[in-house]
Amino acid sequence: MSYSPLLTDLYELTMLAGYFDQGMHERPAAFDLFFRQNPFRGGYAVFAGLDTALSYLEALSFSGEELAYLENLRIFKPDFLAYLADFRFTGSITAPPEGAVVFGGEPLITVEGGLAEAQFVETALLNIINFQTLAATKAARIKLAAGDATVLEFGLRRAQGPDGGLSAARAAFIGGVRSTSNVLAGMRYGIPVRGTHAHSWIMAFPDELAAFRCYANEFPDSCVLLIDTYDTLKCGLPNALTVARELKERGHDLAGVRIDSGDLAYLSRQVRAAFDEAGFPGVKIVASNELDENVIESMRREGSRIDIYGVGTRLATCAGEGGGALGGVYKLVSMDGEPKLKLTSDVAKATLPDRKKVLRALAPDGSFILDLIALRDEEILPGAVVFDPANPVQHVRIPEQARLVELRSMVMRDGARCVPTPDLERSADLASQQLQLLPDGCLRLVNPHIYKVSISSGLNTLRLKLMNHIQSKYRT
Amino acid sequence: MSYSPLLTDLYELTMLAGYFDQGMHERPAAFDLFFRQNPFRGGYAVFAGLDTALSYLEALSFSGEELAYLENLRIFKPDFLAYLADFRFTGSITAPPEGAVVFGGEPLITVEGGLAEAQFVETALLNIINFQTLAATKAARIKLAAGDATVLEFGLRRAQGPDGGLSAARAAFIGGVRSTSNVLAGMRYGIPVRGTHAHSWIMAFPDELAAFRCYANEFPDSCVLLIDTYDTLKCGLPNALTVARELKERGHDLAGVRIDSGDLAYLSRQVRAAFDEAGFPGVKIVASNELDENVIESMRREGSRIDIYGVGTRLATCAGEGGGALGGVYKLVSMDGEPKLKLTSDVAKATLPDRKKVLRALAPDGSFILDLIALRDEEILPGAVVFDPANPVQHVRIPEQARLVELRSMVMRDGARCVPTPDLERSADLASQQLQLLPDGCLRLVNPHIYKVSISSGLNTLRLKLMNHIQSKYRT
Repeated sequence: MSYSPLLTDLYELTMLAGYFDQGMHERPAAFDLFFRQNPFRGGYAVFAGLDTALSYLEALSFSGEELAYLENLRIFKPDFLAYLADFRFTGSITAPPEGAVVFGGEPLITVEGGLAEAQFVETALLNIINFQTLAATKAARIKLAAGDATVLEFGLRRAQGPDGGLSAARAAFIGGVRSTSNVLAGMRYGIPVRGTHAHSWIMAFPDELAAFRCYANEFPDSCVLLIDTYDTLKCGLPNALTVARELKERGHDLAGVRIDSGDLAYLSRQVRAAFDEAGFPGVKIVASNELDENVIESMRREGSRIDIYGVGTRLATCAGEGGGALGGVYKLVSMDGEPKLKLTSDVAKATLPDRKKVLRALAPDGSFILDLIALRDEEILPGAVVFDPANPVQHVRIPEQARLVELRSMVMRDGARCVPTPDLERSADLASQQLQLLPDGCLRLVNPHIYKVSISSGLNTLRLKLMNHIQSKYRT
Repeated sequence: MSYSPLLTDLYELTMLAGYFDQGMHERPAAFDLFFRQNPFRGGYAVFAGLDTALSYLEALSFSGEELAYLENLRIFKPDFLAYLADFRFTGSITAPPEGAVVFGGEPLITVEGGLAEAQFVETALLNIINFQTLAATKAARIKLAAGDATVLEFGLRRAQGPDGGLSAARAAFIGGVRSTSNVLAGMRYGIPVRGTHAHSWIMAFPDELAAFRCYANEFPDSCVLLIDTYDTLKCGLPNALTVARELKERGHDLAGVRIDSGDLAYLSRQVRAAFDEAGFPGVKIVASNELDENVIESMRREGSRIDIYGVGTRLATCAGEGGGALGGVYKLVSMDGEPKLKLTSDVAKATLPDRKKVLRALAPDGSFILDLIALRDEEILPGAVVFDPANPVQHVRIPEQARLVELRSMVMRDGARCVPTPDLERSADLASQQLQLLPDGCLRLVNPHIYKVSISSGLNTLRLKLMNHIQSKYRT
């Protein structure tokens, strides 16, 4: 997909015009993209969208039509428009790999480059990373709730626009939901596509049994019958059993049945018992209807017998705490080599200045102990004392036996990718592995354990110094 | 924008393959697209997305690459793939104009055509209409809450993907939010684009006053200064006053200031008083930060002095009751000229069979009395008795003095548009006018008056007959 450079907020362009006019546009700058709170009040997030973001940056340039539109707005000077005609992204990008488990407060993407180019990409990067990271996280929650059952994403019809459905399918795959009904996502991203049929299929035939028979004839080895059109237990189930027997006589197996209404947990037990009793233990039960991680978890707790969860609306729109948006922000952290800090009304939430690295402390068994944000060139060793960014007098020591690994690496340099892009499968595997390495309780859906994200001594000292400086300058 | 035909659920294609194989694909069918509950537990919805949907239908065809992908799935037969190569939408579409105020339970779009083509477009139509109608409705709620103040949409960075932002800006315009920060929405849809600057602009300069001065020099006649970077009242406000005076000396007017944090209602009163006292009553106050219709309404109630509300995340993602999705569905209502009905576990929620018209009963002053869904060829006159679809024994009479107008018209015939497309401005005007014609209490944000949507005697009788038929056939 190609993104127009005009997919941005007007203020990016007005700021650029100002920087250009002042001759500030090429002064070296660094911005951090991060979110403050884990989505869904959960214990983690799954980073996604990087490949989409890098493709956007590589292709960034203004067409003649786009420049003509900007000219017609009559707010930009000719020399600035001429500058835009040659505008490309030539900076560098530091980021975790897609699928990495990340946490609120950590710099995810750091953009370095001239002030203008690094500022300009704010809106598009936020748009891409906010949504895909949110959807990957939602998918991980749903997949973890479903346990060994399969989850199928089929939210396209309720997604927020066509790309909402497409990006959600991509991100959901990274988060662990490895099949989709979205055929375009299948073609574009190689995601396995799956589906059953609609109630209208049943209604287009004289009766339900005729509709089932016809579908089974068409797809004898992959047939999933929707059994709730008229009455799941009185009519759909007996008709599906009839078709299962007929298929067997012809050497095929009914793949499954889908239940889309009613008490899914209760119905799944009844349907399972009936197929087992009739000698069809291999028929899968698919359930759908406004599912999410909470519904799935409670149905499993009461002994539902569901093999495949079809999850649509609430996955594709990332419904839940937070209202369908990840609150990612993009803040200037360095300019001309000088660290920059943004205060907020809550002093403990001041940004983390300067260019930084993110280290993850691993126990000898590979499990995650804590994350540490440090200055880029600061030496950090196991045993170091680290600080709580929300309460700088709180500190802990990194265990001596911990191993420190960098969460991020430079993935684009001088506007060109400098590492190969991992395929989606590898990103999904990474997420799946990392989620199992979190401390106990981080995966809990409600009131999870909060993973520790600390800052280094050097960063803590610099931040306090800049905070004092700003407060004495502006708030006296 | 062009939509790939693969932007669909796999099951549409498997059903089509089945219909094609059975020779059923050209049998005449009609489907209704509708939602059951007004979004946000509100009193209405604003219909949007039709033009996008018609463009999709007009352009619908499979490319060689798309057909090759489908072939590689190894679930479709060669003759069906050959059929898809020539597949076009040749049916008809009946719909209200964009901007029309509509209600839960009413058929919005009716698609008539061959069974295959009418079935196939389900997913894409739902995707387009669900989101744009939801966003237009959210925008209407926000605009109505804001009263005479201006609302600016700037949710792109938190929208659900790039198209989430673009479709939201388009739909929001129809709903009454007539400016956006989204430059691409400006170019593509002619929506006025607006913006200020970011905190990073301030931080890129030695101090706040220098940053303000520079921005004012760049845009002396359209300068809106963000005054909360360090401290709104102690620092941002006095610096903005300085710049307002300096601009005035040079013959320009400071356009406004923006407040993006803190108690917006309180701060707006302080800032208003300071500018008024200094002789700048024309400086506008822009407020932003997690706004929606509820926050705006309560701030206005406590006497805030805000001229322009910048609304981002919660508009672009349609946050609120319902989790960011309109639950639109798409149901077969007629085949081979025979009416079709879908039962649900709640009998009162059975679908409305057959091809229908939607009539709106208007009082002599033009205000809306009730909507009535009737069979397409049924004659309805003022004075007719109409029924509650959820409780068929409840009935009322249409007032004798009422005027009945059709809500919908045929907008596409044989696959081609048959009415000119109104521009976005006219759609927005229509929404604005119709919202004022609703009965008292329908516009209330919480627990609104529920507008009456009735069914005709003919439709009621047909529906009861089909319900009895299905129940005796399948549920005994």
